[in-house]
Amino acid sequence: MHKIPVGVLGASGYAGRELAALVARHPRLALRFAAAHGQAGERARLGGQDVTFCTADDAPLGETALVFTALPHGASAAWVERARAAGAKVVDLANDLRPGGAANSLLPSGKHATRELATAGNGAGEWGMPMSHGSAIPHSPTPFPAVPYGLTELTRAQVAGADVVANPGCYPTSILLGLLPLLEAGLVAPGATVNVSAASGVTGAGFTPKPELMFGEVTENFRAYGVGNGHKHLDEMRAVVADFGADADLLFTPHLLPIARGILATITVPLARPLAEPLSLWRDRFAGEPFVEIADAPPALRDVAHRNVARIHVTVAKHTRTPTLIILSAIDNLLKGAAGQALQNANLMLGLDEAAGLPL
Amino acid sequence: MHKIPVGVLGASGYAGRELAALVARHPRLALRFAAAHGQAGERARLGGQDVTFCTADDAPLGETALVFTALPHGASAAWVERARAAGAKVVDLANDLRPGGAANSLLPSGKHATRELATAGNGAGEWGMPMSHGSAIPHSPTPFPAVPYGLTELTRAQVAGADVVANPGCYPTSILLGLLPLLEAGLVAPGATVNVSAASGVTGAGFTPKPELMFGEVTENFRAYGVGNGHKHLDEMRAVVADFGADADLLFTPHLLPIARGILATITVPLARPLAEPLSLWRDRFAGEPFVEIADAPPALRDVAHRNVARIHVTVAKHTRTPTLIILSAIDNLLKGAAGQALQNANLMLGLDEAAGLPL
Amino acid sequence: MHKIPVGVLGASGYAGRELAALVARHPRLALRFAAAHGQAGERARLGGQDVTFCTADDAPLGETALVFTALPHGASAAWVERARAAGAKVVDLANDLRPGGAANSLLPSGKHATRELATAGNGAGEWGMPMSHGSAIPHSPTPFPAVPYGLTELTRAQVAGADVVANPGCYPTSILLGLLPLLEAGLVAPGATVNVSAASGVTGAGFTPKPELMFGEVTENFRAYGVGNGHKHLDEMRAVVADFGADADLLFTPHLLPIARGILATITVPLARPLAEPLSLWRDRFAGEPFVEIADAPPALRDVAHRNVARIHVTVAKHTRTPTLIILSAIDNLLKGAAGQALQNANLMLGLDEAAGLPL
Amino acid sequence: MHKIPVGVLGASGYAGRELAALVARHPRLALRFAAAHGQAGERARLGGQDVTFCTADDAPLGETALVFTALPHGASAAWVERARAAGAKVVDLANDLRPGGAANSLLPSGKHATRELATAGNGAGEWGMPMSHGSAIPHSPTPFPAVPYGLTELTRAQVAGADVVANPGCYPTSILLGLLPLLEAGLVAPGATVNVSAASGVTGAGFTPKPELMFGEVTENFRAYGVGNGHKHLDEMRAVVADFGADADLLFTPHLLPIARGILATITVPLARPLAEPLSLWRDRFAGEPFVEIADAPPALRDVAHRNVARIHVTVAKHTRTPTLIILSAIDNLLKGAAGQALQNANLMLGLDEAAGLPL
Repeated sequence: MHKIPVGVLGASGYAGRELAALVARHPRLALRFAAAHGQAGERARLGGQDVTFCTADDAPLGETALVFTALPHGASAAWVERARAAGAKVVDLANDLRPGGAANSLLPSGKHATRELATAGNGAGEWGMPMSHGSAIPHSPTPFPAVPYGLTELTRAQVAGADVVANPGCYPTSILLGLLPLLEAGLVAPGATVNVSAASGVTGAGFTPKPELMFGEVTENFRAYGVGNGHKHLDEMRAVVADFGADADLLFTPHLLPIARGILATITVPLARPLAEPLSLWRDRFAGEPFVEIADAPPALRDVAHRNVARIHVTVAKHTRTPTLIILSAIDNLLKGAAGQALQNANLMLGLDEAAGLPL
Repeated sequence: MHKIPVGVLGASGYAGRELAALVARHPRLALRFAAAHGQAGERARLGGQDVTFCTADDAPLGETALVFTALPHGASAAWVERARAAGAKVVDLANDLRPGGAANSLLPSGKHATRELATAGNGAGEWGMPMSHGSAIPHSPTPFPAVPYGLTELTRAQVAGADVVANPGCYPTSILLGLLPLLEAGLVAPGATVNVSAASGVTGAGFTPKPELMFGEVTENFRAYGVGNGHKHLDEMRAVVADFGADADLLFTPHLLPIARGILATITVPLARPLAEPLSLWRDRFAGEPFVEIADAPPALRDVAHRNVARIHVTVAKHTRTPTLIILSAIDNLLKGAAGQALQNANLMLGLDEAAGLPL
Repeated sequence: MHKIPVGVLGASGYAGRELAALVARHPRLALRFAAAHGQAGERARLGGQDVTFCTADDAPLGETALVFTALPHGASAAWVERARAAGAKVVDLANDLRPGGAANSLLPSGKHATRELATAGNGAGEWGMPMSHGSAIPHSPTPFPAVPYGLTELTRAQVAGADVVANPGCYPTSILLGLLPLLEAGLVAPGATVNVSAASGVTGAGFTPKPELMFGEVTENFRAYGVGNGHKHLDEMRAVVADFGADADLLFTPHLLPIARGILATITVPLARPLAEPLSLWRDRFAGEPFVEIADAPPALRDVAHRNVARIHVTVAKHTRTPTLIILSAIDNLLKGAAGQALQNANLMLGLDEAAGLPL
Repeated sequence: MHKIPVGVLGASGYAGRELAALVARHPRLALRFAAAHGQAGERARLGGQDVTFCTADDAPLGETALVFTALPHGASAAWVERARAAGAKVVDLANDLRPGGAANSLLPSGKHATRELATAGNGAGEWGMPMSHGSAIPHSPTPFPAVPYGLTELTRAQVAGADVVANPGCYPTSILLGLLPLLEAGLVAPGATVNVSAASGVTGAGFTPKPELMFGEVTENFRAYGVGNGHKHLDEMRAVVADFGADADLLFTPHLLPIARGILATITVPLARPLAEPLSLWRDRFAGEPFVEIADAPPALRDVAHRNVARIHVTVAKHTRTPTLIILSAIDNLLKGAAGQALQNANLMLGLDEAAGLPL
């Protein structure tokens, strides 16, 4: 069977390597190129294949059906344009084109899931996990007027018909999938604060060496970062929450775990009205979804490591006068939180089985 | 200088070993015995001394000035009585005598910090960190009518004059010290939910081998436990919060970290009124306290490992309509969360320098 | 395509779970049963399938083409007999039937690779990694007179035609594959000591909870065990080495690593004569072998994790008067060191592609 | 009691920070300065004191009685001279002045322990643990003609009378202390190869960020480095071994452990004649030594963490025709392997109790 050629820009970072490996093992895709700025000419073993990195400038964009851009935030938008100009579809893993920019809603109608105006150049930070306090970033208009947000379980139809998709951030993926049934049912208490304490493994902070990411500093350690509700992923999450018309504040505190991969979000939500059997709401919403598991017990990061799934558990909090849910949502930040979801979207965009090549 | 003889019951568990090591290095205390049920006759090197464990029954309680009971919850109260009958003062590290039992307040007057009625036999669970969902436990009256709660920075005077002290739990120590300035100033918003997401190293779960505590299961993993707001430490915390007259719910979700020691509590508190410079409130309250550090930046568990301190940072949350604080409180669960605070209390009870023998 | 039914006895241990997961994902095999003594009735998610454990007594041995016995050493031989009596082929992962028993050589002719006399009941120790000092164990005759040793790259032909195969131990797999080219070429210096310092992750010690395997004891730790050249795997290795006629002593010191999976063997071998380009000897011997990688640089355990390969590097030692090689051999102890090699053998025994269902 | 002022050059690296902390807690020493090239002006909490780093050029060398130089190899010798010129004694933690340079023996007489000619500028590598393959480095004469080697238990008298001491490397400390009784008794088999497989935590590789030292690369990993018997520490060890007249080759393979601190050396030594009770030889040699523990069982790195000791165990290997010992020697690489031993030496040079301020 003929394989469809795809390429990866930014293939030496953690997400890029994961993508290249997924593509190398994919039954219907072939890895046409793996571009990596600093490692051009070097060889790596990815997904059972020997891969030689090229520079982005040498990447044969036009010989691929689809390009994944796993570049630093801000550097991505220009390459999305170049790949489009060369005729390739694009899944962009940076936050350049995600919701939370200039537009107030995701769609003029307020109907979620496709962005009218995306933004470019919004941040030079690390992929997914800034080590310093985040802050609001001004956005400017974008040449991609209607880029769907690739939270696949929310926007499957838009993704399937799109030429460019903005792949969600790792934290937003875990948190928004956990909140989705409540948002869709309008069950978040008006005026409430949705409290999210989340923890991520170090691969979320990228592959650039920094003192605070060295083994000797991370082992036997744990700390919060981005403290004060200023993490850059908040804009992305707020935009989606607002698009559902939910009148709630998000309070998000991320933490750095001494593990390589995985995100666990612990979300507490005051409810508009009590829910006796909350799990059924999640089971109904995600029935038939191959990449969302509703679990009877709290998920552990080990349950989702090396798998393209979100694993979600929901419990009613005892001893609170406001009816409150505790939602636990676990993902592998490099798979469902980045490369896996990107491939899920790419499969749809290329007309393939959505689950092809994705580890369960 | 003559050294004061003290003993440790339960000296082979994580907290007990830490206590025996602290005593062995102490300038004014001598370790008269170290009792350990299953290891009687075995030798260990603790605090630079060779220690041979005896059985609790063989422990010469009457030849000590003070006994630390680091026994399983429920097993402790009877030994507290025996040690008292033998003439020794007692610091009890179990939760048997802590607040949260039958009495509605800590003092009839509502004045905090000394318990009128404590409880016995309230639970056979693990020390500090039950692996299963907690639940309310019925309490019965106790033979210790006025046992001070040994959160030293709150109850120093009562501790100094006491014969028996109930040493706080590890989670309550980190959380209550973080909340103390707000509670004392009456700044928690009435009717609010104080949200606590906390994470602990595995020594909090005790030294008894269980499948879920094996290295192969904990490494590269992270998970919540006691989910649903039912952790046994909640009664203890609620009793203290209520004693201050705060009209707030606690919502507490603990997590298990792949590290040996340390607790980080991430606490969000809706305020009765905005605080422009919150750190000054904490700095004022803990001025001169040797074992509480108010930090300019979020604390890391590494900052407090092997030290008898709580390290606290406070930030105002951006982007919330209710004024909200984020309090981060880090301790070493075996020191300030257990053995260190127990020794701090013992020093006071024996008329010694409160800081003697405590690592800073 | 019809799938061939196979079963796993001992499916709740680390090797057994890995096997069940490999079978569940296998393109040509179906998991007919997964038996686990203590967990009968419990459900687990293995290889993307929900699996319910049965007892070994309830296992429908006769409805399978092949049974994997991943039982404790000593407990295995009896089940091998029962599975054979029921008509199933067997791959035995215990050391009950491996070389090193009563017979002095693997074959009367001295031709390696098929055992004349195997042994039963030789040890109740842990799978693969005893925590206490090993010792010589008396062997008795066996009902399996000619069980091939399943070091696949050495004994492929015998395995393909066998009804029962003794799967090698994890340490022997890494060490013997590393030594194989030297043994076959007769290049080990006569009378020399082959020095092996090896280190294994904790899954090699099995899933039974023990204090020394708890996270709090293993993290930030490292130690040798089985010190004194008495590890139980030595008999197995010595038997193979002797079968090649090599006149050398083995000196083997294993260590416990604070990681979940992986074995690295660091082997130094005095040579009968100098080798200028040693790597070519390994490249030639393993040319075309899909599961042996000869590397230009020292292998890291990360290179082989979750893959069914041995990765080997060889260097000439500088500054020694005796020509000496340093061989580094890395495997995933649960895959090439246990379940993966077992499946490699099973594929051959069932006439399937040797590589089917094995992660590269 | 008046405290003696000392300074630390290179105080922001792992060894330098450890030294500054030891000095800060020392009963008889005061930290006069802590110089750190890149962090000048920054503050750190070290040993319970707030320390502000200065530049080396601003360091008041002349106001100290002794300076510790914890600088990169090659950069150290010049600062040793400057500190000496300013009147301070010096303990140098680099390998610039250690044995193994131009001189063939440590003393003209062949009597060990004081170097006639030391070398300068021999290597720009990392402290203690080069990540790349080592190689022979040409040495040039030195301005420090007779710098004692500070392996305290071997050279106590020379150290006590010295103005400059070359503090041993971390690997040489663990290995040479383990071998010392055999070397002094002339028990190493003539012509034999002493085989050393050692493993170190990451702090041995220094604090400079490198991709291969990031948490995401080290966790769940293990690998050899400096493979081929070319590690830079070999010259240092060979010089000491040769000084004892031992006619043996050293074969040394270091490995990188996923832990922060600790070195375990596993040493196998062919003996000139059998030793029935080897431990007694070590017990006799180190009787009364406060910082060497002879253990009945194999030492674990946890036994020595945060302690200034070498913990040594010795066993006779079974099943080898040459009588062979297995020596296991464990240290904390930052204490007995660097800062602790440096302080031990400084205490002697300043006429203080050798054990002052050193954690046991």
